[in-house]
Amino acid sequence: MTALLDTLRADLPEDAVTVDPALMDNYRYDWARDPAAGVPLAVVRPRTTAEVQATMRWAAANRIPVVPRGAGSGLSGGSSAVAGGIVLSMDRMRSVVIDPASRVAIVEPGALNVEVKAAARAHGLWYPPDPSSFEICSIGGNIATNAGGLCCVKYGVTTDYVLGMDVVLADGAVVRLGGARLKDVAGLSLLKLFVGSEGTLGVVTRAVLRLVPAQKPPSTLVATFGTVAAAAEAVVAITGQLRPAMLELMDGASINAVEDHISMGLDRSAGALLLAQSDVGGAAAVNEIAVIANACKASGAREVFSTDDPAEGEAFAVARRAAFPAIESRGSLMLEDVGVSIPLLPALLAGIEDIAARNDIEIPTVAHAGDGNTHPIVVYNAADPESVARARLAFDEIMALAIALDGTITGEHGVGRLKKDHLPAQLGPEAMALSHRIKDALDPLGILNPGAVL
Amino acid sequence: MTALLDTLRADLPEDAVTVDPALMDNYRYDWARDPAAGVPLAVVRPRTTAEVQATMRWAAANRIPVVPRGAGSGLSGGSSAVAGGIVLSMDRMRSVVIDPASRVAIVEPGALNVEVKAAARAHGLWYPPDPSSFEICSIGGNIATNAGGLCCVKYGVTTDYVLGMDVVLADGAVVRLGGARLKDVAGLSLLKLFVGSEGTLGVVTRAVLRLVPAQKPPSTLVATFGTVAAAAEAVVAITGQLRPAMLELMDGASINAVEDHISMGLDRSAGALLLAQSDVGGAAAVNEIAVIANACKASGAREVFSTDDPAEGEAFAVARRAAFPAIESRGSLMLEDVGVSIPLLPALLAGIEDIAARNDIEIPTVAHAGDGNTHPIVVYNAADPESVARARLAFDEIMALAIALDGTITGEHGVGRLKKDHLPAQLGPEAMALSHRIKDALDPLGILNPGAVL
Repeated sequence: MTALLDTLRADLPEDAVTVDPALMDNYRYDWARDPAAGVPLAVVRPRTTAEVQATMRWAAANRIPVVPRGAGSGLSGGSSAVAGGIVLSMDRMRSVVIDPASRVAIVEPGALNVEVKAAARAHGLWYPPDPSSFEICSIGGNIATNAGGLCCVKYGVTTDYVLGMDVVLADGAVVRLGGARLKDVAGLSLLKLFVGSEGTLGVVTRAVLRLVPAQKPPSTLVATFGTVAAAAEAVVAITGQLRPAMLELMDGASINAVEDHISMGLDRSAGALLLAQSDVGGAAAVNEIAVIANACKASGAREVFSTDDPAEGEAFAVARRAAFPAIESRGSLMLEDVGVSIPLLPALLAGIEDIAARNDIEIPTVAHAGDGNTHPIVVYNAADPESVARARLAFDEIMALAIALDGTITGEHGVGRLKKDHLPAQLGPEAMALSHRIKDALDPLGILNPGAVL
Repeated sequence: MTALLDTLRADLPEDAVTVDPALMDNYRYDWARDPAAGVPLAVVRPRTTAEVQATMRWAAANRIPVVPRGAGSGLSGGSSAVAGGIVLSMDRMRSVVIDPASRVAIVEPGALNVEVKAAARAHGLWYPPDPSSFEICSIGGNIATNAGGLCCVKYGVTTDYVLGMDVVLADGAVVRLGGARLKDVAGLSLLKLFVGSEGTLGVVTRAVLRLVPAQKPPSTLVATFGTVAAAAEAVVAITGQLRPAMLELMDGASINAVEDHISMGLDRSAGALLLAQSDVGGAAAVNEIAVIANACKASGAREVFSTDDPAEGEAFAVARRAAFPAIESRGSLMLEDVGVSIPLLPALLAGIEDIAARNDIEIPTVAHAGDGNTHPIVVYNAADPESVARARLAFDEIMALAIALDGTITGEHGVGRLKKDHLPAQLGPEAMALSHRIKDALDPLGILNPGAVL
């Protein structure tokens, strides 16, 4: 092994290769904390595309698995280390350059989402994709998972903002795809194929991201409903009339978890709460909030509050944001990410309630309701093997339920290693076979993130 | 050949296979009128996915080329018939079903873009992609080329609206990808790979399209500038502050062509004209038009007109729409589709002017300026071989210029057969090799639209 690593070290700067077990431990897990994560042979931390190429050439020559890694905030185990493999951490490649006239950011994959947003803001521009983890997640990871967030109900997901990238392939070749061009249909859509591929097809070392004009200060509305079905009816009515800049849902269990944690005076008997924002500004925002309020009332909302004061709106949003810490205080969590079409949200949430009851476990749910993307949060006691077993069962049952409702097992977190076994049930044998054909064509040795996704 | 076709006929309804030369002639060409289009063996017009599968199974067994075809309005020869091959016309698969609660349209590929728009409108919904040919182009063709249009400066292109599809692969297997889910990252982005693949990877037989709330009546602004550079400066200023619903440019040559054709009182001495629309409605639209007007004035606009009356705005838009018929009256046309980043628009348009002068040929240009996507229109005399030769040279030089400016040879029309020879210069050998690996993995016999794109 030492001789093998010496050949890698020969092609890289002295400090690029880490084998210290204590240091490597920081690169073994992502937020899924997969207990099956292996002990890697080494962690490589390149500073340039050329160093990524050298690593991949060495890995290909020696058939060593490589797990590309951004900030490690993934929730599906997509960057869990593989025993005897390389963790290829992009945390030293973090430059962000804004071209305001072309309205693009040229970024390295280790740059955090929040850093890109801040750099764009300095030019009056905005990078919309906003996963809840935006302060700690990397752009490379966002591209790998095609990350979403709260504003994608109006502004789309990561793939909608990737105009170009440099990708190092499994054999070490580098390919430049796309560029600072808003429309380009020359050749196959290779760019889009790499977005969401979770490090299984190549390693992104540079991305050209589309920026848009800064968002206006939002107006905010909160409404409570007796049932999830009533709230979902409001969501259908709202999204058929306008595009809200945010449309989040909390179910009764998550409302109560928040009230238990920080008393905010939320209605504990409510079956659901909707949080909506409009960012069109001025009189138009007043109109949009009125349309949203009317849709809520027509769907039987119990109470509707709204404000055009961004600070007050932010206070309303605190409840939604408090959901995770509130639920975290109740035990260990398995975070789901299932989605369905909006009209099926009530069926999904009723099914989740049933799964919780049958397995005698708590599953509060928050949702990006405007996209039909939900985060049921399975709460369990990590010290109690029986609780863990029940939680695992519930976690699996929720994915099966989503598939039965013609939905998806993951709307924005990725398949990683945690959901891999459920992917064939969603995609079917033909799409799985097609995926393997693509994977085999691009990574014939199977060294890129083996064990993830496929 | 008769025996061979008999085996195909055996698997299809009686009227699905046409060999009548006169009838087949209607399916040999698209709007590129490629003189190299071959005489096909037969035209197949399936009514179901199963019939498409039967055709592909037969073609794979007999290694017969298949050219999938929508409405034949393509501009790059992507559906020119191949000698001895099958033209697989989707013109009998045209159903459109709207699911208003899920906000999707479920369509067959032969449905026209305008038919999808109309069906959506009946439910207060909107299918945004709007190629200029929207009244005569098919959704299948739109997906094949990842078609754009005038509103994509704000609303994106076809790929942004494709949520799901059924695709028949080269071997006749059918794969269902995606569905009525707004966010879904389960597995590789296979869906996006087929969008823009111009019939070289599979045949789309059903698509699930995202719909959005109906657009509000637009407010419209027209501004004239002394130079293209001044207009481009305005475009950069506008798009840095807001997202116009339309932002079109006409250069001096196209202004004069329109004035020659229908006298509208346009300023013949203007170097460029911008046509912008806002669709946010009410006071917000007044604000947006004011921002656009100020940006135009600050960039040295000579004259600025605006209106919030949609009918008057439509009259303003007539000049832009009159450009094609006006230019068509001057001779035969080769329609370009090159794009660059917005700050490079002046360099691109100056270069085109230079190419026109050097080749002693007219090349008026209209552009989706907000996307940096331009349509230089090479005018020539089809009866004069020397004029044809100069036009071809100019056509090629424009693509070379776009590539030199880090741009694209096609923003929305596709590569087809007309631009195939120029693709390697844009993509480079690595991306070409990668494209071939994907193509070979999905169509190992090379029977799907051979000669197009790659």
